Amino acid sequence: MQTELTVAQAERLIRETVPTWPAETVALDAAAGRVLRQNVLAERDLPPYDRATMDGIAMRWRAWSAGQREFPLEGMQSAGQAPGALSNAGAAWRIATGAPLPRGADTVVPVERLSETNGGVRVDDDYRPKRGQFIHTQGSDRRAGALLLKEGQRIGGVEMALLSANGVARPRVAPDPRIALVSTGDELVGLDSRPESWQVRSSNGPAMSALLARRGFGRVTAAHAPDEPEALAERIRTALSGSDALILSGGVSKGAKDYVPGVLTELGARPLLHRIRQRPGFPLWFGMHGEKPVFGLPGNPVSSLVCLRRYVIPALEKAQGAPSPAPEHATLTKDATFKPSLTWFLPVRLATDSDGRLLAHPRPTNTSGDFASLARTDGFAQLPAHRSRFPSGRPVRIFRWNG
Amino acid sequence: MQTELTVAQAERLIRETVPTWPAETVALDAAAGRVLRQNVLAERDLPPYDRATMDGIAMRWRAWSAGQREFPLEGMQSAGQAPGALSNAGAAWRIATGAPLPRGADTVVPVERLSETNGGVRVDDDYRPKRGQFIHTQGSDRRAGALLLKEGQRIGGVEMALLSANGVARPRVAPDPRIALVSTGDELVGLDSRPESWQVRSSNGPAMSALLARRGFGRVTAAHAPDEPEALAERIRTALSGSDALILSGGVSKGAKDYVPGVLTELGARPLLHRIRQRPGFPLWFGMHGEKPVFGLPGNPVSSLVCLRRYVIPALEKAQGAPSPAPEHATLTKDATFKPSLTWFLPVRLATDSDGRLLAHPRPTNTSGDFASLARTDGFAQLPAHRSRFPSGRPVRIFRWNG
Repeated sequence: MQTELTVAQAERLIRETVPTWPAETVALDAAAGRVLRQNVLAERDLPPYDRATMDGIAMRWRAWSAGQREFPLEGMQSAGQAPGALSNAGAAWRIATGAPLPRGADTVVPVERLSETNGGVRVDDDYRPKRGQFIHTQGSDRRAGALLLKEGQRIGGVEMALLSANGVARPRVAPDPRIALVSTGDELVGLDSRPESWQVRSSNGPAMSALLARRGFGRVTAAHAPDEPEALAERIRTALSGSDALILSGGVSKGAKDYVPGVLTELGARPLLHRIRQRPGFPLWFGMHGEKPVFGLPGNPVSSLVCLRRYVIPALEKAQGAPSPAPEHATLTKDATFKPSLTWFLPVRLATDSDGRLLAHPRPTNTSGDFASLARTDGFAQLPAHRSRFPSGRPVRIFRWNG
Repeated sequence: MQTELTVAQAERLIRETVPTWPAETVALDAAAGRVLRQNVLAERDLPPYDRATMDGIAMRWRAWSAGQREFPLEGMQSAGQAPGALSNAGAAWRIATGAPLPRGADTVVPVERLSETNGGVRVDDDYRPKRGQFIHTQGSDRRAGALLLKEGQRIGGVEMALLSANGVARPRVAPDPRIALVSTGDELVGLDSRPESWQVRSSNGPAMSALLARRGFGRVTAAHAPDEPEALAERIRTALSGSDALILSGGVSKGAKDYVPGVLTELGARPLLHRIRQRPGFPLWFGMHGEKPVFGLPGNPVSSLVCLRRYVIPALEKAQGAPSPAPEHATLTKDATFKPSLTWFLPVRLATDSDGRLLAHPRPTNTSGDFASLARTDGFAQLPAHRSRFPSGRPVRIFRWNG
């Protein structure tokens, strides 16, 4: 087991350890928010036909170019109808936006440039159509077979448009993992109890569930366990049996009642990492139970949310087959000082200025129990261990709660 | 009815028209992702008791200061137990992280600085505790009654922690609105059909649903209507009756089969806006049916997604009681040119550089039908109408698909 690793070492160890879950196929309407686990190629040319982009007439440009201004109309070409055909070089069809170009036509003249005549239309004298205008030509966006979506992308609006348009009725996607949360601590009482003055209400379960939900993880169950080895073991066994990943909070420090690492090991988890050179979150524990990642996060609300965002969510996303996101940087707007030679996760509020600089406004907490100070923060900055002064104006790496 | 408004005028008109939906109370575990519609005050001091932040002993600093180094132990103070009391000024208790300070103690000495003696502990000779150290003092984060969360915030991890800790079992939140999508267009076929060469698969319904889902709107139903007034009216009537907001795509241009505005008006919708000086999305229609906002978006996939993000989602968020988000700016990384005197929505990929500048990499589309080019974009830039050249390095306002 590794101990007191740096943040970078811990991140690498976790990333290299966590397996990639096997893909599954789901109905397309259940795929929103999932990580795509296949490439998507264009099924047909995009667009699949020469498509009018204006309402007007479809005609042959050479007829206009040879001096013809009045066009007899042979029909109406609507969207969704098989394309008609010009019967001769001087004919035209009415056409609607989105309709396929009738055979023989090569140009669309918009309705605003036409006047009605007896049985036809007349192109305005002062109007000069360009050959091929107002046609979205077949295959001009992408050719059939072109790569449209790459494996690893999370399915949002754009990805769903491309999956639908290409008829991918059952895409291969990453599973939506079952995540079990177990919070420990005898000082915790439930939402329905009135806490004694020395007790606090349990908040890590709901908070971690909500953060996971905002990142697309919807199958989360939360339970509480007392600071007592037998009961804790029983709770962990249950949680492990019904989940793909286990996240505990509390019970990982050096105190007499910090049973989590010992109980996990007894239950067959392989301990891989304990303690990271960081604040908050120093006591973090990580191991594997069979193929299931197990995280023991410190119980303070700030520590558990920071560690969830910094380590657990990237590990879950890696297991889903998503590539590592590009690091994000912002500029500190206030001096910050931190003496210990530990990496410091400093909560920040993010905003851009009108020049397009991303600004990180520090919102330091009193202690790692001071979660009231997290209200209205957008995430945290990661400030390196080998410095103690972080002046205003310095670019720093940031992590968004929801980003 | 207003027509051909600027983007700013249209935005204001929509914002001023859309009502704020009445709040509802829900069980806390159903509140994640909702907009909070109440302030949350601290129920008790935070922390609610003098709380040890290290494992060690709790003692009285004056005893140490007077030269005492060995401390007899009177008990173990665990988290979740009512605080004990030092029986005399020279006594001490073992204490665990998170436990309440025993009465009479004012300082915690960590276990790493102690050695065991017969019936007690000895503080290391070279260790100098500070008075009051390793205690997270009652009320030091927030006093009872302090404002913790303000009305209008969306409930993520941090907000859920504060709601739980303060015992807000049934918060007042905005409703999760029922949103009906109706896509029109005779050229559209379903996912299960094999399209003819002049047809395309319907993609706006699934794409808009997925984009709405990423923004926390989960109660979305999608239907398709043909380009035929009676059938369209029937579909719209059904959609209106079961929803809080209606979004149509297609059928809002000037073509012969663009029945949407006419049918909506016949069904009693009050038309307020048609056409915005922008590309894509020029033909956008907006009105109210009773208290329900109705949006008629252009049918091209790029137009409908851009208009959904630019107008519909902010309107829905306003109706939920969320404040207008601060505008976000980024720097263009490539020259872009756009001749028409219309506001241009230019798809971009976003990234920060190591100096903390937010960069917008232009990903122009071929036409507003070219949704393949939206793959791997993060949103779009809004480029003002009165300019045609947008040089690299210029700061521009941006909108994120998911942000």
